[in-house]
Amino acid sequence: MRIALDAMGGDYAPEAVVKGAILAAEQLEKDDVILLIGKEDVIQPLLNEYNYAGNNITIVHASQVIEMGEHPTKALSQKTDSSIAVGYGLLKMQKADAFCSAGNTGAMLVGAMFSVKAVEGILRPSIGGLVPKLNGGFGIMLDVGANADCKPEVLEQFGEIGSIYAKYVLEIPNPKVGLMNLGEEEGKGTVVTQAAHQRLKANTNINFIGNIEGRDLFNDKADVIVCDGYTGNIILKMAENIYDILNEKNMHDPFFDKFNYEAVGGSPILGINGNAVIGHGVSSPKAICNMVLQAQKMVSSKLSERFHKKYSV
Amino acid sequence: MRIALDAMGGDYAPEAVVKGAILAAEQLEKDDVILLIGKEDVIQPLLNEYNYAGNNITIVHASQVIEMGEHPTKALSQKTDSSIAVGYGLLKMQKADAFCSAGNTGAMLVGAMFSVKAVEGILRPSIGGLVPKLNGGFGIMLDVGANADCKPEVLEQFGEIGSIYAKYVLEIPNPKVGLMNLGEEEGKGTVVTQAAHQRLKANTNINFIGNIEGRDLFNDKADVIVCDGYTGNIILKMAENIYDILNEKNMHDPFFDKFNYEAVGGSPILGINGNAVIGHGVSSPKAICNMVLQAQKMVSSKLSERFHKKYSV
Repeated sequence: MRIALDAMGGDYAPEAVVKGAILAAEQLEKDDVILLIGKEDVIQPLLNEYNYAGNNITIVHASQVIEMGEHPTKALSQKTDSSIAVGYGLLKMQKADAFCSAGNTGAMLVGAMFSVKAVEGILRPSIGGLVPKLNGGFGIMLDVGANADCKPEVLEQFGEIGSIYAKYVLEIPNPKVGLMNLGEEEGKGTVVTQAAHQRLKANTNINFIGNIEGRDLFNDKADVIVCDGYTGNIILKMAENIYDILNEKNMHDPFFDKFNYEAVGGSPILGINGNAVIGHGVSSPKAICNMVLQAQKMVSSKLSERFHKKYSV
Repeated sequence: MRIALDAMGGDYAPEAVVKGAILAAEQLEKDDVILLIGKEDVIQPLLNEYNYAGNNITIVHASQVIEMGEHPTKALSQKTDSSIAVGYGLLKMQKADAFCSAGNTGAMLVGAMFSVKAVEGILRPSIGGLVPKLNGGFGIMLDVGANADCKPEVLEQFGEIGSIYAKYVLEIPNPKVGLMNLGEEEGKGTVVTQAAHQRLKANTNINFIGNIEGRDLFNDKADVIVCDGYTGNIILKMAENIYDILNEKNMHDPFFDKFNYEAVGGSPILGINGNAVIGHGVSSPKAICNMVLQAQKMVSSKLSERFHKKYSV
């Protein structure tokens, strides 16, 4: 397995990424390789400085960097030798099984759509957010930001896509799908969620349990939480902020500690021809390590192939 | 000042309501009166049992009760002598300055629209949710559930209505208005929030500071948080759930304790001809007391009159 990792992406890159890669390399299988993408003359000295002497990290040179504030489409078209462009190039040519970056989120999304592209039959690729559950483990919420507005049929498909992720990556048998809404009754909600409810209910591919509410995010009602990217993004950032506040107040607890982005490392892009994970801009070495391990899980569970098999005719 | 209070509304009614009314009566001005609406033969024995001997509580008999599960419109048309119908009757005839109930939320909303009605010129009355701020005090978020879908012009007006509430009830001079969104940049968001952003930006009646994100809910960026009722409802219930989880884990903190519905007592209905507050179904005596005190503040700050003066020509 070859996992490409953008060495130049994130506020603390390249140092935090190189450290994270070394942490991950220690936990990967013997034959697994991390392809560390970026400026070789910057990365190699760091590997030396951190005394990395293993065989699981290979540098892939990329001379350019897309900065956090750059316009995604413009940057990708102009910086064809940027670490993100090179990473997606490797993914497209199947020289990498997964690509991870804590860099420019927009460029990661646009890059995916321009290179490996959406799986044929998938209406809208989405970003999945991992939601910690009170009774242990995680659920998956989608979308958390790729699609602000979603049509009912898109929300329905999120239920299917999320179920595949939950089943194979989170290893939850027969995952329960819930539609985020303002009330449990099926007539509640926006025009779009009301229509989506009917579609999800009629869909025999999934285990739809009905509407869930804001209070159900962390309980066991649903393993797959379906919502538009506007709503999911607000929920995710609110949860991250709760963690930050608790942390500042020195209030610690194993459940709330899982709200920390470091615990999961990143958010998978779901529904593209390849496995890609977007990390948090402020990713620490631990976050980078967990992002790589999440990508490893996506690859070993054949996530991308499963989407392709299900949707592409 | 006369504050009408539904003695029969809420999961723990009438006991919790009567207890709450007694708590509130102790904190009201000498001339203020709580009109406790419900079955006299049930309420009077409770007042006796709790040794209430003051002059600030008057019973207003209502022979019927709208139960929590009943269909609002149907129940209101059939139960014309229910405590909610009687309460709104008093409000409409200006025999009460405010009406509070922890009963059927739908009936409280429908009752408002059928009796005192929306202020002419107000597009959509909304429910305001009080949001605790890290640096003290509260902000107001609207809508939190009355209108799942909102047009841009409705969101714009929420900015105005919320500003009036923040200025006069929360006593925040020149309140900052933020549009809840998935990114700070003005081009971000749904089609509706993008359009609402432009309207809010052009509105010279308010102090619009731009988009805010899920992570900004509790900080000082905005005193008035504008969003549709679907989003606001999810945010509010998620915050309540966070409080419940912290409480179960015995993690206490003055800031997070303000997430408890008891701290504010209820959510005001904004934009109707009268002051009304909806309490949480599980309202305790403390919650009821704070709901009455919130209503008192709305009356003394002339909230309803201010809406009327601004919008009704």
